[in-house]
Amino acid sequence: MTLLENYTITELTPSTSASYSKTLTREDIVLFARCSGDVNPVHLDAEYAATTPFGEPIGHGMWTGALVSAAIATRLPGPGSVYRSQSLTFKAPVKLGDTVTVTLTVSEVKERVKLVTLECEARNQDGKLVAKGIAEVIAPAEKQSLKAGILPEVVINELS
Amino acid sequence: MTLLENYTITELTPSTSASYSKTLTREDIVLFARCSGDVNPVHLDAEYAATTPFGEPIGHGMWTGALVSAAIATRLPGPGSVYRSQSLTFKAPVKLGDTVTVTLTVSEVKERVKLVTLECEARNQDGKLVAKGIAEVIAPAEKQSLKAGILPEVVINELS
Repeated sequence: MTLLENYTITELTPSTSASYSKTLTREDIVLFARCSGDVNPVHLDAEYAATTPFGEPIGHGMWTGALVSAAIATRLPGPGSVYRSQSLTFKAPVKLGDTVTVTLTVSEVKERVKLVTLECEARNQDGKLVAKGIAEVIAPAEKQSLKAGILPEVVINELS
Repeated sequence: MTLLENYTITELTPSTSASYSKTLTREDIVLFARCSGDVNPVHLDAEYAATTPFGEPIGHGMWTGALVSAAIATRLPGPGSVYRSQSLTFKAPVKLGDTVTVTLTVSEVKERVKLVTLECEARNQDGKLVAKGIAEVIAPAEKQSLKAGILPEVVINELS
């Protein structure tokens, strides 16, 4: 059982930081395409992707955005946060097998309105910046230690 | 077979517009959680969600972001676009069964560098604004009509 713990607004100061990593798999691409409807073949079809400047299947840009949001929701500030805004600039493609590490760093805390600004960076396993941006989050007032939601099993039946 | 057609940079003018709709299902929430790792129980656990201000499970904010990116990748400008940046402000939660319509409207075209700015709005079935923002995209130079990527079957085995 995974416990998600949060930072309350009073625990956050400029330079509080947290990281979150995930390796992009074929499953991630399929599931992201399925839940969003983004069926661009540059993500799904290796033969087509080989004809593009990328040369191979790449992850959806917004998959990296999803990792940023996962880092906010589960790590910093964590459960009880309310996501207000996000900006992202996409700097480089993420390829199958790349491990993306999102690092969030608090840059501003407005305690009266509980608004926290986070600098967000996503880098691949070589340290190359793949995306960066700014998030604004309403931080929780109360400490929470919460059981992570349990995911049902997901099975992908690849076409033969 | 779905064909994805694009707008080339010379076909885009301010006010060119396109829409894309999707209804949020339990499957979408599970798959988004799985591919991102965002296992906050406010999305996954109805019992826990009932204790929050939302009162029921809500979609991940960035799922709406994923719909915006799907609209860009498959509709406007469509295949061959390169996603440069996205800003999003989250205005209201999306609940299970809500139908979100993303509308993209070209606000600026810099033909020399092929850079297109899109105003992005996401509204629910009642017309309520759930998210808005700005995207910057490098539009394709060449016309493409492309077979959508084919998704394998995905089966979710809910825990009993």
